[in-house]
Amino acid sequence: MVDIATRVWNHKWKIDPIVRSLIDTDFYKLLMCQSVFRNKPDTQVTFSLINRSSHVPLAKLIDEGELREQLDHIRTLSLTRGESTWMRGNTFYGKRQMFRPDFMDWFENLRLPAYHLERVGDQYELTFEGNWPEVMLWEIPALAVLMEMRGRAVLNEMGRFELQVLYARAMTKLWEKVERLRQVDGLRIADFGTRRRHSFLWQDWCVQAMTEGLGDGFVGTSNCLIAKNRDLEAIGTNAHELPMVYSALAEDDAALAQAPYDVLADWHEEHDGNLRIILPDTYGSKGFLDKAPDWLAGWTGIRIDSGDPAEGAEAAINWWKSRGEDPRQKLVIFSDGLDEEKIIELSKQFRGRVRTSFGWGTLLTNDFRGLTPDDRLAPFSLVCKAVAANGNPTVKLSDNPNKAMGPKDEIERYKRVFGVGEQTAQKVIV
Amino acid sequence: MVDIATRVWNHKWKIDPIVRSLIDTDFYKLLMCQSVFRNKPDTQVTFSLINRSSHVPLAKLIDEGELREQLDHIRTLSLTRGESTWMRGNTFYGKRQMFRPDFMDWFENLRLPAYHLERVGDQYELTFEGNWPEVMLWEIPALAVLMEMRGRAVLNEMGRFELQVLYARAMTKLWEKVERLRQVDGLRIADFGTRRRHSFLWQDWCVQAMTEGLGDGFVGTSNCLIAKNRDLEAIGTNAHELPMVYSALAEDDAALAQAPYDVLADWHEEHDGNLRIILPDTYGSKGFLDKAPDWLAGWTGIRIDSGDPAEGAEAAINWWKSRGEDPRQKLVIFSDGLDEEKIIELSKQFRGRVRTSFGWGTLLTNDFRGLTPDDRLAPFSLVCKAVAANGNPTVKLSDNPNKAMGPKDEIERYKRVFGVGEQTAQKVIV
Repeated sequence: MVDIATRVWNHKWKIDPIVRSLIDTDFYKLLMCQSVFRNKPDTQVTFSLINRSSHVPLAKLIDEGELREQLDHIRTLSLTRGESTWMRGNTFYGKRQMFRPDFMDWFENLRLPAYHLERVGDQYELTFEGNWPEVMLWEIPALAVLMEMRGRAVLNEMGRFELQVLYARAMTKLWEKVERLRQVDGLRIADFGTRRRHSFLWQDWCVQAMTEGLGDGFVGTSNCLIAKNRDLEAIGTNAHELPMVYSALAEDDAALAQAPYDVLADWHEEHDGNLRIILPDTYGSKGFLDKAPDWLAGWTGIRIDSGDPAEGAEAAINWWKSRGEDPRQKLVIFSDGLDEEKIIELSKQFRGRVRTSFGWGTLLTNDFRGLTPDDRLAPFSLVCKAVAANGNPTVKLSDNPNKAMGPKDEIERYKRVFGVGEQTAQKVIV
Repeated sequence: MVDIATRVWNHKWKIDPIVRSLIDTDFYKLLMCQSVFRNKPDTQVTFSLINRSSHVPLAKLIDEGELREQLDHIRTLSLTRGESTWMRGNTFYGKRQMFRPDFMDWFENLRLPAYHLERVGDQYELTFEGNWPEVMLWEIPALAVLMEMRGRAVLNEMGRFELQVLYARAMTKLWEKVERLRQVDGLRIADFGTRRRHSFLWQDWCVQAMTEGLGDGFVGTSNCLIAKNRDLEAIGTNAHELPMVYSALAEDDAALAQAPYDVLADWHEEHDGNLRIILPDTYGSKGFLDKAPDWLAGWTGIRIDSGDPAEGAEAAINWWKSRGEDPRQKLVIFSDGLDEEKIIELSKQFRGRVRTSFGWGTLLTNDFRGLTPDDRLAPFSLVCKAVAANGNPTVKLSDNPNKAMGPKDEIERYKRVFGVGEQTAQKVIV
């Protein structure tokens, strides 16, 4: 029996929208958005798309008109009643009313601001300018749209059964990872793969497969829409954009040196428990931890997002010890370029020494490597970052020089201010 | 949107019937049925299930009550108007009215006769007795029911995503075979996998995948229902049951020696062109061909269904040459335990020397080997054969002693009458 109404409904769409909800985004974006809304609402920021994989000619693969249609569709979205109810009524990290009424009132009336799109060679220049709390919400949907449109460009040339087999292969590949992860005692892992997912439906499938395959070991997803639809925990804390923008606003070197701690001081006031996670690497983890105030050592954990993850975790353990804390009570969250082998290795390495948790991103939701000829569906390194705040360029150094961003002279200044010495380059996979 | 009517409809079924149509069977069964209906309608035959894989404890895996429900359901089936129209109106092998009005009138009123089912140890004894044209139609649905119920017993213990990944793996496996077969120039291949398929839906999927993947190289399916639904050619000619029953009816050794040729004489009268395919191995191919009348050398081709396939094809080529025929105009159909490697090898080996075609059975529609722990979904060797005709036991020798069936003394008698010497044993895979 064909459900005629469903079929007619599906054919009424002018386009097949990739992002269909304002909460089809990472939970930490909403947390940070609330913090920014409260502390720096009028900051003018510019976010910009950066394709670190220049061999992927996005402007050749993706039609500009179709890209505009997708972005325009996102600008029509507003928070639905059910989404608002979920955000207002849900328990996040065991806490009710994580999102306060004044923020929710603002968010309910929000539409995403204008974008600037221009083709430059084989790439797109895509930028967003305006008030920080609004502009920042473009990051995840913009990335998801570009990743999925690039995928569609490849999928469009495939036959019906070829497509089914493609997904069969992808499912098999993920399931085999899940089966290996299932062997790890006490594993705690979350989906962090929204931004560079193969597609929304695929991320949704991956999350459900993880739920069945790992049971309690799968602690949730960063994607709010999927968390809501699948009755899972929404997971996440904060990201580099906070220290990057705070630092860009600093008026002199002394204020700059202090800026990353100011971010966490604001956060400390707003959140407790599992949301108190330090992200130390924006301007070098070593200097950040050495100079950190003692109250930061009382926080729950540290997220390792660049550099060698084992070294980062060892450094965190040593730092906690040096501040009189018991690392076995602390949490290390690994979230940089993980795949299941690395997850298993790190999990074993730190068992009994520190609590560990894993934020598994691109290689959970977009590991289409090796599934098509010429690997045209392999994930690639696309980011969308704050590049300026109130007219000043932003800078990110991280613990991997290959991930550094910003004007050269500013990078040098930041290195000097934060005392960043020699760094080891790591290949950026995704 | 949930289609409520569909959902309610689906839940109305008391069981999930495995065979839902009288034409969910092999095309050659219907061709042979018509021949039997015309030539030997009153012959009393017994068909019996034989599980050659005694390590698969069917009676432990399959509930007797559920098996009866499935078999009883098949007894409620009758030819639908659309199915009758398809059989009456379709072109088979380029010929209209392949099925004659008197046969169709009979078939339209047919219900399958009673069955006898009894548990004996860990196996079932399942037999069918009665008029040959009716009883013979049990073979394919009985096998399909047992194969699919054994599969369901395994599938019932699997989780939702585990199931999806199982099928993902099976799809990938088949598609990789299709991709390799696609490389073979001039390949002609058909689905012969109804009787030992994993399930109806899976066979239907395999047929569609072959259609997309191989294009014109995929010449059709032996399954009439799928041929009808998917608008494909129904493929097949005749099988061992004809010479086996004709031989059992022979009154003395002289008549026995003649029986296999009597079968083909009847067939010769009824069919021409591509339906004139010799199946020489029932009582040894060598003797059969050596003693064959000259008019048989004029037939279109030979089907190789036991023994070493390359040797069988060489023997056929030599036989045609010895009878003054040009083998390049002749067709060799390989149909015994094929998988894609053997298909590719045989195709290359005989290119330019004889036309080849492949009837791909169990390893097309049921290659679930290696897809579950303990290989509990691997296909196994289940057959349903005519074991008696008018009170006499039947015998099959074939070119592989492991496939011989019948009482020991009768086997010896047949070997003597047909002059079968030393044979090479071949492993029976499926």
